[in-house]
Amino acid sequence: MIHFDCDYMAGAHPEVLDAIVRNNRVQTAGYGCDDYCDRAKALIREACGTPDAAVHFMVGGTQTNSTVLDSILWRTDGVIAAETAHINVHESGAVELFAHKVLALPSHDGKLCPAEVRDYLHDFYADDTHEHMVAPGAVYISFPTELGTLYSLDELEQLHAVCSDYNIPLYVDGARLGHGLAASPDVTLKDIAHFTDVFYIGGTKMGALMGEAVVCTNDKLLPRFFTLMKAHGAVLAKGRLLGMQYEAFFKDGLYERIGRHAVSLAMRLRKAFEDKGYKPFIDSPTNQQFFTLPNDVIDRLMQAATFEYWGPRGETESRVRFVTSWETTEADIATLEQLL
Amino acid sequence: MIHFDCDYMAGAHPEVLDAIVRNNRVQTAGYGCDDYCDRAKALIREACGTPDAAVHFMVGGTQTNSTVLDSILWRTDGVIAAETAHINVHESGAVELFAHKVLALPSHDGKLCPAEVRDYLHDFYADDTHEHMVAPGAVYISFPTELGTLYSLDELEQLHAVCSDYNIPLYVDGARLGHGLAASPDVTLKDIAHFTDVFYIGGTKMGALMGEAVVCTNDKLLPRFFTLMKAHGAVLAKGRLLGMQYEAFFKDGLYERIGRHAVSLAMRLRKAFEDKGYKPFIDSPTNQQFFTLPNDVIDRLMQAATFEYWGPRGETESRVRFVTSWETTEADIATLEQLL
Amino acid sequence: MIHFDCDYMAGAHPEVLDAIVRNNRVQTAGYGCDDYCDRAKALIREACGTPDAAVHFMVGGTQTNSTVLDSILWRTDGVIAAETAHINVHESGAVELFAHKVLALPSHDGKLCPAEVRDYLHDFYADDTHEHMVAPGAVYISFPTELGTLYSLDELEQLHAVCSDYNIPLYVDGARLGHGLAASPDVTLKDIAHFTDVFYIGGTKMGALMGEAVVCTNDKLLPRFFTLMKAHGAVLAKGRLLGMQYEAFFKDGLYERIGRHAVSLAMRLRKAFEDKGYKPFIDSPTNQQFFTLPNDVIDRLMQAATFEYWGPRGETESRVRFVTSWETTEADIATLEQLL
Amino acid sequence: MIHFDCDYMAGAHPEVLDAIVRNNRVQTAGYGCDDYCDRAKALIREACGTPDAAVHFMVGGTQTNSTVLDSILWRTDGVIAAETAHINVHESGAVELFAHKVLALPSHDGKLCPAEVRDYLHDFYADDTHEHMVAPGAVYISFPTELGTLYSLDELEQLHAVCSDYNIPLYVDGARLGHGLAASPDVTLKDIAHFTDVFYIGGTKMGALMGEAVVCTNDKLLPRFFTLMKAHGAVLAKGRLLGMQYEAFFKDGLYERIGRHAVSLAMRLRKAFEDKGYKPFIDSPTNQQFFTLPNDVIDRLMQAATFEYWGPRGETESRVRFVTSWETTEADIATLEQLL
Repeated sequence: MIHFDCDYMAGAHPEVLDAIVRNNRVQTAGYGCDDYCDRAKALIREACGTPDAAVHFMVGGTQTNSTVLDSILWRTDGVIAAETAHINVHESGAVELFAHKVLALPSHDGKLCPAEVRDYLHDFYADDTHEHMVAPGAVYISFPTELGTLYSLDELEQLHAVCSDYNIPLYVDGARLGHGLAASPDVTLKDIAHFTDVFYIGGTKMGALMGEAVVCTNDKLLPRFFTLMKAHGAVLAKGRLLGMQYEAFFKDGLYERIGRHAVSLAMRLRKAFEDKGYKPFIDSPTNQQFFTLPNDVIDRLMQAATFEYWGPRGETESRVRFVTSWETTEADIATLEQLL
Repeated sequence: MIHFDCDYMAGAHPEVLDAIVRNNRVQTAGYGCDDYCDRAKALIREACGTPDAAVHFMVGGTQTNSTVLDSILWRTDGVIAAETAHINVHESGAVELFAHKVLALPSHDGKLCPAEVRDYLHDFYADDTHEHMVAPGAVYISFPTELGTLYSLDELEQLHAVCSDYNIPLYVDGARLGHGLAASPDVTLKDIAHFTDVFYIGGTKMGALMGEAVVCTNDKLLPRFFTLMKAHGAVLAKGRLLGMQYEAFFKDGLYERIGRHAVSLAMRLRKAFEDKGYKPFIDSPTNQQFFTLPNDVIDRLMQAATFEYWGPRGETESRVRFVTSWETTEADIATLEQLL
Repeated sequence: MIHFDCDYMAGAHPEVLDAIVRNNRVQTAGYGCDDYCDRAKALIREACGTPDAAVHFMVGGTQTNSTVLDSILWRTDGVIAAETAHINVHESGAVELFAHKVLALPSHDGKLCPAEVRDYLHDFYADDTHEHMVAPGAVYISFPTELGTLYSLDELEQLHAVCSDYNIPLYVDGARLGHGLAASPDVTLKDIAHFTDVFYIGGTKMGALMGEAVVCTNDKLLPRFFTLMKAHGAVLAKGRLLGMQYEAFFKDGLYERIGRHAVSLAMRLRKAFEDKGYKPFIDSPTNQQFFTLPNDVIDRLMQAATFEYWGPRGETESRVRFVTSWETTEADIATLEQLL
Repeated sequence: MIHFDCDYMAGAHPEVLDAIVRNNRVQTAGYGCDDYCDRAKALIREACGTPDAAVHFMVGGTQTNSTVLDSILWRTDGVIAAETAHINVHESGAVELFAHKVLALPSHDGKLCPAEVRDYLHDFYADDTHEHMVAPGAVYISFPTELGTLYSLDELEQLHAVCSDYNIPLYVDGARLGHGLAASPDVTLKDIAHFTDVFYIGGTKMGALMGEAVVCTNDKLLPRFFTLMKAHGAVLAKGRLLGMQYEAFFKDGLYERIGRHAVSLAMRLRKAFEDKGYKPFIDSPTNQQFFTLPNDVIDRLMQAATFEYWGPRGETESRVRFVTSWETTEADIATLEQLL
């Protein structure tokens, strides 16, 4: 059986796991106050080109999103996000649990349109009754999006400009950031750091056992963040585990290599489908690929491969998602090619 | 340097870590829907003697307490706890973040007095204005307590009886449950399961990388718990990691062995202090030991050992805490004996 | 100057105010535990044809919506509502403040489409990932809607059926209930009580100084509601004031008379506009009327009348809202007719 | 029957009610954007000697406390209060509902001891683990307290100094402020305004139908307060009613007169008890008086008077509370004197 369900089906990338195993018996202080975390933070700051950025490690994506948003949003503010945003759909209302409304704007293959964000903000403040309404206090985007798509550097700059004009932070959910950066023709990690206020460098979907690294370049944000994290249940006692993994990711380019590996196999996978005449229904350049397939093809593939079924499209076809990751091999793709 | 600061300074017990390493490349579904979790749950149910108990895995203690309490407490109810309870002191208000008041009763070396709990409940309902007050909706105890002390079986039965009479659940924070069971003259894991409604079997402080296992024997509690966990940011994507570790803990008695190891070394450590005439200021039978020491002795020990300083007591003495764990060795204790 | 801005610009209807003035010096217990409240509740139960309904008095609409929804929704559930719903737009996120997501469906002139609600519920449970999503835990409608429109008896029955099938409550925001009932060709107060689980009979917009009366016919809902109200800051110390006003409303048909008065003047007002060729842009049978007017007409009207400006429509026209109430007089309408 | 249960048993003081009745048909904008509110705010600012203070009107005390505290406390901060504080006992956990812990310090007849507050703050920041704890983000006192006692001017200055040193606001719950000011030998309304950051001038217990006026002299506090109030359900649609009442209170000294009236009758009442040998068990100079009485005396009084029973004290005595207000008459006191 070959697996394309998602990018968190196995444990950790061997180099990441090795960092944990190798240092297992070393004793350190808890809660991230250790040398591994310090070194990992320094490496991340360097990779981002932001020597003064604050870096915080958390365990998972939903936790990271709701804790960061709870910090950067004013008490009753909401957060602008695409209708398809993870925080709007698949986090069980974690943003609302902490009292913030998700202000959903139309999704363009998973992306917000910068001009629509600007219009929304303009119209909000033009409305005489806006003090009775939930104010937009931040903009959330994911890079890549839940549909595998990417913002161009130009779009990122435009979103940055809108947020600056309205003095609200731009926050990037980078659950699959490495896959996005590997696939982007123009956006680099330094651009992400430059054009946003807060973002996280996803670990769980990039080959860590668990872990997400929040990077905050706006020094007015995330005050007293440790206490807020603790109250959210987001502080890992053995915080060193996160430091060890991120040190492994960033000390010699592993994070980038993982992204390139998964994206390059995703492109081979896509080509395999296209060669058979199956077009993707979303044009994703990243490690998630989306196809409409005849149901009999799906049935045949399911004999030997796992992937996500996204529901019927008409009588004879259905939509499916295939995901590659650090654990996908050339052999897996070859097997899939043969199955097709 | 030898370390007695706490029981979460190193990584994982080798047998626990090995389970993760050995199965690293196996691919499974996410979010705890995997065979490792299933087997671990079955082993835990068996160890507890509760074939129908629900078992849920979470990542850390604060997260577990606030999620479980958020589930078992009615909207505006509070939870009775000792003044010294972890939820009342060292969780940054995580219980309050989810809208519940901690109703603090006097601490008797970290323990609630069952009779005082009964009186509190009686007086609450006897008060004509109680509908204007926060109702006590659950009782929280820790086993062992934050001060290393233990409830006797008799006390546990009494608390159970009070809670039954008032129809509110009894919840046990078992962050160090294994250490408590190893030290208790009469309370077994089956007793904990029998006399309480919900409890958790702590992993982080017992030799796991991370992880806590919630066991719920009252089938009216914790409805739709997965969704609540998700909203709390308490669902681990690679949930299998928790299953693997608990399987290692419970498949052949490792959890008990770790508890016995730590407690037996704690007793040796205590004897070493007592032999020198330093009495513990709390009579703890578990892996946390508390002493009042002359300041010059503390200074001397600090040259070669780490431990927690709890503040001065008078001019010439101070209070300190020493903690043993799976990682403490006979050699560590011998070194400490020599230092004294 | 004549006023058509809204239905809460003056104090109270004279008969309602008189009840407060007449009984001013009578001393009673606080918090609604008085004979006025008891009698008002009995009158409301009788008018609703629900001898066993629970009745609770609160002060304002936002407070009532957020307190009731906080009670009837499970911890992380959301509430289905039309995109234009008051709770989704003009309550500053009060529903989210108490951790619940508003699940917005398309608005059909302010109304939910019962079939779309059914589809939403069906699709939600058909989605394999629904445990990661906010579950729809109640349906909110307003009667009349924020756009003055009304559900027919048939639509009400359909919504009731959907909610029954999915075992979730149907809640009606009746801020202007009296105006809606006066205008409806088929829905009576008894129908509202029969086909819903909870609703409120609006007072503030119907001629009370303040006050809303929650009626709950589902005896499984609103447990320990007084304590929840208190925690929400929604218990009025001098609760008698609410009882006095609702007794005045319901003891001899005043509530109905106020509704009929406002609606009949609204129809005259509408006819005045239509006679001049100005068509309403929403077909509202109730006390809110919406027109597209040439800007010069608006300018002329503004010399002598107040009303709500809803923004431009093209270059030469704009949208406006006119509202009648207990305080609108025949003379006001005659003056308006002359102005046109 | 004569009534001494509490100070909110009747409607409104005639002059207050008259302001509402007289202006009943005047039409104004809603939500407090009207001339009555503007004039009332100006009068309050003048009475407080704070020309720049922000003034906000809310409906009731619990609502006011939880909304103000939700605004002035940082996300996870708690509020220091006496154990007997209204927010700690009789508000159903409204402060916790909005995620803030009440940090209860010992009550000295209802009052905080300034030195103990200073020690608490000192010890908190001296504790190495304080980032894991709920930080004290404000100090709450009531003037007069729930037990009728008063802070001296010196104590108020000391509390102000502590709060200034730790840069946290001092907030005063003034539910009965007028009664407290009338009784205080040295504290004036201007002192309250000078030595605190936020306080409210209670209306409900001073002769208003309902209403509390928040005064904020610290211009860094209460940003965007209207929206927060709205989300809390604390904005009254017909906000003018609050303006009318406070204008009546402050335009020619009515608020002070009501306080003096109630306090002077409370002193006569106290003397009546003392003349019979019944000593108060709390030395309250305000309109609440607390006595320990023989049970047979209580039985006799209950034939002709109502008051609050506070529970037995030994076999033959019980504690009771008598409250005077604007509605208490000389004749009521004379009747009580005869009953004794």
